[in-house]
Amino acid sequence: MQQQALVAGIDIGGTNVALGLVNKQGEIIWKDSFSTKQFDDFTLLVSHAAKVIKTAVQQISSAYLIGCGIGAPNGNYYSGSIEYAPNLVWKGIVPVAALFKQALQVNSIVTNDANAAALGEKLYGAAKPFNDFILITLGTGLGSGLVVHGQLVYGHDGFAGELGHVIVENEGRACGCGRKGCLETYCSATGIVKTYQELSGEESSLTARKVYQLASLGNELALQAFELTGKRLGLALANAVAYTSPEAIILFGGLVRAGDLLMKPTEKYFEANLHNLYRGKVKLLTSTLNESDAAILGAASLVWQNE
Amino acid sequence: MQQQALVAGIDIGGTNVALGLVNKQGEIIWKDSFSTKQFDDFTLLVSHAAKVIKTAVQQISSAYLIGCGIGAPNGNYYSGSIEYAPNLVWKGIVPVAALFKQALQVNSIVTNDANAAALGEKLYGAAKPFNDFILITLGTGLGSGLVVHGQLVYGHDGFAGELGHVIVENEGRACGCGRKGCLETYCSATGIVKTYQELSGEESSLTARKVYQLASLGNELALQAFELTGKRLGLALANAVAYTSPEAIILFGGLVRAGDLLMKPTEKYFEANLHNLYRGKVKLLTSTLNESDAAILGAASLVWQNE
Repeated sequence: MQQQALVAGIDIGGTNVALGLVNKQGEIIWKDSFSTKQFDDFTLLVSHAAKVIKTAVQQISSAYLIGCGIGAPNGNYYSGSIEYAPNLVWKGIVPVAALFKQALQVNSIVTNDANAAALGEKLYGAAKPFNDFILITLGTGLGSGLVVHGQLVYGHDGFAGELGHVIVENEGRACGCGRKGCLETYCSATGIVKTYQELSGEESSLTARKVYQLASLGNELALQAFELTGKRLGLALANAVAYTSPEAIILFGGLVRAGDLLMKPTEKYFEANLHNLYRGKVKLLTSTLNESDAAILGAASLVWQNE
Repeated sequence: MQQQALVAGIDIGGTNVALGLVNKQGEIIWKDSFSTKQFDDFTLLVSHAAKVIKTAVQQISSAYLIGCGIGAPNGNYYSGSIEYAPNLVWKGIVPVAALFKQALQVNSIVTNDANAAALGEKLYGAAKPFNDFILITLGTGLGSGLVVHGQLVYGHDGFAGELGHVIVENEGRACGCGRKGCLETYCSATGIVKTYQELSGEESSLTARKVYQLASLGNELALQAFELTGKRLGLALANAVAYTSPEAIILFGGLVRAGDLLMKPTEKYFEANLHNLYRGKVKLLTSTLNESDAAILGAASLVWQNE
């Protein structure tokens, strides 16, 4: 019987850790998840994850592990660490890759979650045909991964691709990064809620899902909130094209589930603001990956891209 | 006697063509220039340039030509053409590389002038130590070349790196590209003149050099024009860092000759707007190349980078 090489893909989020075993074809053979917050100490999280991964590998006939890819907020490809992630409980620098390598005895690679998502789209999703593209994740914040000439852009220090923190409004909304007017304060789940609150004067706590439901029912202010979000996003994406001239921009994440409500205004303002050198050449697409699997596939792609 | 391999570097501008013969060490063995506008027909320009280059090579003992690099506005690396350059007399698509290859019988490569300048800095100038950097040219307009992981970024269609056409102001100044609010309408020789005119109400024709002279004499409005230009530029460069996380940004071109008048405010607003992930890590430098030689060196680098 043929041996089956598998890669562990681990996505570390503020709330949950999702993990799975992925074969070269991008099939998730096994997956699991657990709550992040039960582990004050990161080494305990690694022990737990390693135990469930090893057990899973043993139970799959003829399977063996060849590597481990990890996506995490502020994950740094070069240092192998999570560095000063504001939304995680572990402070400072956490040597994630070294700890997983020790626990699993395989090559372990880390990068930030949006970079991992970009690789996942390249190997297994909507970006398969493209050597130059940008992936944008629209969740609580706005993340991004740039692929140039077929390679993920890490930058000189491993922190390239922070498009959510391009300042788009002087003295604009306060951002978690300590500055003002960052793109993600407008174009994200949090941003659209804030926009709706500003339009409606409603102070009560609200979710992006609720704004979506209101817009679906024809609520004028909620529709306006989507229009304004798409206007900002369309312009920001048109500006992004002037940097790396990608063949496609791929949108991913919770906010993208709003479908045409978000995509129609985004497309309109994207085309309207695009320099004529690029007009008609750049595809605006949404991810084709199952949302709950994408993070695992993306993390596993860190290893599979080199095999 | 040892044979000496040389590359022809040709910079095609709206006013002048500068050309030279460059050895691998980046020494310009011979150079010349002629007026662009005398050639309505591009093939006549090529014939003339080829003739003077061949004559020059023959007169240098033991020299032989191994390639030809061309920098030109809207020059496209992939197609080898100048495509729809608004400031050149030849309209539509001009097959520059093919024409020079035919005339000189050597490998000929074209890219836009700012990309060529970036390569020149990498091989022979201030960018030698860096694998990830951005070059910005501040002349009549604002051009840029991005280098990522040691490679010039061309994008999927050869038109990457148009940072001068990032829209920084909604409904801002009219740009030559047909849109409004592009960075180069503020941060360029043309832009600073416009800013000074807006501040002073002076309508008379003026040059950036004149604004510089006024500022040097302590003219309050001219000083303000530099401050505002540096403010826009500093923010734009801080935003650029969030894309490719470069180790350095290198400024080049006529406006940079203003020295501290431009650089001080640019540095101030650059650091003030930089995300804390990057703070203190990105060098803001000026070109170390002789300005009149830089375009020739940059063009020749298109060939020398692969030798």
